[in-house]
Amino acid sequence: MKIPVIVTVLSLSLASHAAAQSWTTPTDAQRCPSKWGAADQRGAGNHMKPETVLRATRLIRTGETFELGRALKSDMPFSVGRRFQMETKRTNMNAGANRRGSNEEIVFTEIGQVGTQFDGFTHQTIGDSLYNCVKVADVATRNGFTKLGVEHVGSLITRGVLIDVAALKGVPMLGDTYPITPDDLQQALQRQKLTLQPGDAVIINTGWGRLWDTDGARYLKTNPGLTTAAAEWLAKQDPMLIGMDNGPVGVTPEPDPALSNPVHQIALVVHGIHLLENLKLDELAGKQVYEFALIVQPLKIQGGTGSTVAPTAVR
Amino acid sequence: MKIPVIVTVLSLSLASHAAAQSWTTPTDAQRCPSKWGAADQRGAGNHMKPETVLRATRLIRTGETFELGRALKSDMPFSVGRRFQMETKRTNMNAGANRRGSNEEIVFTEIGQVGTQFDGFTHQTIGDSLYNCVKVADVATRNGFTKLGVEHVGSLITRGVLIDVAALKGVPMLGDTYPITPDDLQQALQRQKLTLQPGDAVIINTGWGRLWDTDGARYLKTNPGLTTAAAEWLAKQDPMLIGMDNGPVGVTPEPDPALSNPVHQIALVVHGIHLLENLKLDELAGKQVYEFALIVQPLKIQGGTGSTVAPTAVR
Amino acid sequence: MKIPVIVTVLSLSLASHAAAQSWTTPTDAQRCPSKWGAADQRGAGNHMKPETVLRATRLIRTGETFELGRALKSDMPFSVGRRFQMETKRTNMNAGANRRGSNEEIVFTEIGQVGTQFDGFTHQTIGDSLYNCVKVADVATRNGFTKLGVEHVGSLITRGVLIDVAALKGVPMLGDTYPITPDDLQQALQRQKLTLQPGDAVIINTGWGRLWDTDGARYLKTNPGLTTAAAEWLAKQDPMLIGMDNGPVGVTPEPDPALSNPVHQIALVVHGIHLLENLKLDELAGKQVYEFALIVQPLKIQGGTGSTVAPTAVR
Amino acid sequence: MKIPVIVTVLSLSLASHAAAQSWTTPTDAQRCPSKWGAADQRGAGNHMKPETVLRATRLIRTGETFELGRALKSDMPFSVGRRFQMETKRTNMNAGANRRGSNEEIVFTEIGQVGTQFDGFTHQTIGDSLYNCVKVADVATRNGFTKLGVEHVGSLITRGVLIDVAALKGVPMLGDTYPITPDDLQQALQRQKLTLQPGDAVIINTGWGRLWDTDGARYLKTNPGLTTAAAEWLAKQDPMLIGMDNGPVGVTPEPDPALSNPVHQIALVVHGIHLLENLKLDELAGKQVYEFALIVQPLKIQGGTGSTVAPTAVR
Repeated sequence: MKIPVIVTVLSLSLASHAAAQSWTTPTDAQRCPSKWGAADQRGAGNHMKPETVLRATRLIRTGETFELGRALKSDMPFSVGRRFQMETKRTNMNAGANRRGSNEEIVFTEIGQVGTQFDGFTHQTIGDSLYNCVKVADVATRNGFTKLGVEHVGSLITRGVLIDVAALKGVPMLGDTYPITPDDLQQALQRQKLTLQPGDAVIINTGWGRLWDTDGARYLKTNPGLTTAAAEWLAKQDPMLIGMDNGPVGVTPEPDPALSNPVHQIALVVHGIHLLENLKLDELAGKQVYEFALIVQPLKIQGGTGSTVAPTAVR
Repeated sequence: MKIPVIVTVLSLSLASHAAAQSWTTPTDAQRCPSKWGAADQRGAGNHMKPETVLRATRLIRTGETFELGRALKSDMPFSVGRRFQMETKRTNMNAGANRRGSNEEIVFTEIGQVGTQFDGFTHQTIGDSLYNCVKVADVATRNGFTKLGVEHVGSLITRGVLIDVAALKGVPMLGDTYPITPDDLQQALQRQKLTLQPGDAVIINTGWGRLWDTDGARYLKTNPGLTTAAAEWLAKQDPMLIGMDNGPVGVTPEPDPALSNPVHQIALVVHGIHLLENLKLDELAGKQVYEFALIVQPLKIQGGTGSTVAPTAVR
Repeated sequence: MKIPVIVTVLSLSLASHAAAQSWTTPTDAQRCPSKWGAADQRGAGNHMKPETVLRATRLIRTGETFELGRALKSDMPFSVGRRFQMETKRTNMNAGANRRGSNEEIVFTEIGQVGTQFDGFTHQTIGDSLYNCVKVADVATRNGFTKLGVEHVGSLITRGVLIDVAALKGVPMLGDTYPITPDDLQQALQRQKLTLQPGDAVIINTGWGRLWDTDGARYLKTNPGLTTAAAEWLAKQDPMLIGMDNGPVGVTPEPDPALSNPVHQIALVVHGIHLLENLKLDELAGKQVYEFALIVQPLKIQGGTGSTVAPTAVR
Repeated sequence: MKIPVIVTVLSLSLASHAAAQSWTTPTDAQRCPSKWGAADQRGAGNHMKPETVLRATRLIRTGETFELGRALKSDMPFSVGRRFQMETKRTNMNAGANRRGSNEEIVFTEIGQVGTQFDGFTHQTIGDSLYNCVKVADVATRNGFTKLGVEHVGSLITRGVLIDVAALKGVPMLGDTYPITPDDLQQALQRQKLTLQPGDAVIINTGWGRLWDTDGARYLKTNPGLTTAAAEWLAKQDPMLIGMDNGPVGVTPEPDPALSNPVHQIALVVHGIHLLENLKLDELAGKQVYEFALIVQPLKIQGGTGSTVAPTAVR
């Protein structure tokens, strides 16, 4: 078992990166209006066009599908303060001569932020300001947001690219606090002989997902993830969304102790790029499926900050 | 305004049909094991194979997508006893030097049975018996079902066919209790020059969906829908799922007053065919998009009876 | 039927009062520390002592009890954004040889602020400051407050005095926006030959409660209630709590359009006096029970802002 | 530390009792109509009369109150499938010139069956039959019960008697599965020089409550409690309610493995006697307060099976 040794080595590299990588929050003036226009609510979702769909579906050659979503259940790993609680309801028993019975369920959950989840733009702020400098106070209501809600996103179908950083490093799973750098991403792409294109769904495999069902406490405590530099490099590639097999997407803990998950801000607030979290990537990575059509249908939760989802990769 | 007149005529035709169409619930011996095998939990979901996906994606020529899902909100039409209630949660304010704020939402809802929804096989019974004669008492728990839960379904991608019965009848919307017959379906297909194939997603436009946002009370009170004869005819065509722009799929009220929504039983319990309800079909019907790739990703609610969804048609 | 006429007259008096009565929010320096000490969390609850209990129980001569609480149900009147939703759960059926069945219910509700309710001190603020100048930011968590929560209150047993202002005015119900003045309170007490004592539960009958079951929309739209002057006068009498047969306690709309329910602030934030709302007072008023033991047991909701309750008057 | 030794001895006595004590479920004919009449919905709540109140309040000599309720919080011990989840809601910030802020909370909980709780008669059945042979199917709805709901109970004020079985045995806490017998109860009463009277609130101290905050898992796993013989003996004394410092009231596990908590049935279904569970009795027992006024105000949950409560003893 060489994994612990490798983990140690990779973790050591963290220390040297930490000093270099710290990130300065852009001012409103620096980041607004967004490149999609001052009134824009869609951000990188604007990449979703008929030609984007065709670019994706052209990659479908075998019709094989890969489920990237986790089962929703009460004992899956949750960020602090979240849950998924469900009660079965039997609502009819033996109705009519046809003895029709009916069952349904009631749930209590942070529907936008549990399980495999898609982040919309109301999920994160810099101070009191959302994507495109929309002010929280202007759009927040008790029951959702009047702008930037996840109902505006629509179904997304685009070229998906899996960047397997764990494979690049020759490990099944990156170290507990491994910071993924721009170099890591570029080397992994080179190894996979792929380049990114604007509008892609960039999906990054860290191997961390193998803890989802086996060690939820460790899954939540820390995670390998993007450095701010890697997040900024990715943002420059102009993707539609960034996905990963952990919740924070950014490395946890963030190497700069003064910062609180800046990667979430870089993607959602600064650049208007959606995040896909807690993905199940073992099959894609195991079969080395690096290029595919990525399909995700966020629920149209009016004014919602995100949506639990069940995305699919098709090749 | 000729619509009321037409409605009256169509409603009159109901009376003559009613006597003829009544349906006898099959015994367990008559319907089990299902044609997919005694241990099967997937029913018509078994049609979902790589070649099914390819058959669907080959229909994608322009990359144009149509959103078939309704926005999820507290004031949409609900069947009795259901709701969608959401409270915004501000969970971080100005965390870190990067002043990260975070929002999420808590919901209380019948997640499998609200809005545009996908029905799994635990939703309906005949007496104490589900699809493939699985007994409710053997699989029901307080928190879901140990068999036949909607988490087994997976993403579905198949050829979608819109049967526009309203267009066949020359009306924007069928009458309030219009019973769709096998003849109606066959004539509409003939008019559209299409035939059904096993594994199709058969989507039926009644026009009823135009009441969703404008008159929820009427939307819920009655609805045009399938007769039991039409449901049985459709089942013989061996589709993967049946979708409609209303909730019950069957005509409401059911013409035979002794029966309680037998169409739900015919599809879900007897034949193992999924249902897609409360679809938004105005764009598809308006642009006469009759053949397309239908994509739907039910949430993987463990042990769930169904899932609210945001399906897409792509052509 | 003279009521409408009287209502008009009483409402006219509102206009003349409006100009005179406006209230200036005290500064933190003016109101803190509270008279109960800088570290105090109990406010007027400090009146609850053994001798207070004895003073109350000495008033019990017949043992007759009056239920002052409303039934909790989904269709009672709610302030905006609140609800009480309940689903029956059958959790056992025929367990054991003794065939034990078990039922329970799941609810989704603003438990501190629905139905007949008791207000704790975290319910209201002046700016970012609670009773005794505790700062919201210092004590608020996602799941309640670390100080001033309703769990600190304990059961209250004290002398209750019903001030029947409707009876004073000779009407079954005060006008829709009738502003109760200090004079009204004093005249009503004189008419009832009673004086207030420190630590009393002062319960005010406006007759508005008769709308609870019959016209919830009107019940919520406006209500007769205290002017700020009356609230300040009451506060000077040093009661343990103030109760009323409406939700806001203050007259609604507040006559000074610049202010938002200042009476709630006067009681809860400035003086640390609890409020009891949506009381059922018809029996007490009908039988002219003006002095009694008032008993209320707020639920010990940890960190809660209040509690739905079922108080009792005993004489 | 002698406790473990004593526990062992007491537990051994269990084995000898087990064979003797088994209980036969009465038939409907044997138990109905109840002694309170065929249409009765109040059971032993019928003891609540003015003279009962006076009998209780006459016991109040010092005005000292004892809080018998536990704080309601998400990490208290719960029976399987229950929870108390609360989210703080900030619903106003700086409204008006008076800068009024407002907070409330949303909860998701089995409101009738969490924390210190009062059991109504719809909580338990024998087969499909409730107290007084009301059939579940006749009164159960999705949202509560149309008969026997806890809203009918009203506030209860009666003589309370603490039977301290732990003190009788000379231990701070009875053994994990200690079965309380009729002899135990009678000897404890004799030791305390008290006799029971019809209509009493009989509160039994086992000491088990000291685990509530310190070892919730052990608190729930087993508990000392009544044998069926002790429950039947108590029922013959005709109390208004039986209270205890555990959840099941009956000893757990029930010595007869064929039976599922028969003590719940004996009290609630057979004899119509209410139960008060998870009481905090340490202060009462510590100060040897054996006779007092017991006051409990169940929430008026329409159609509810019970209510979380905050009862008080006053002496």
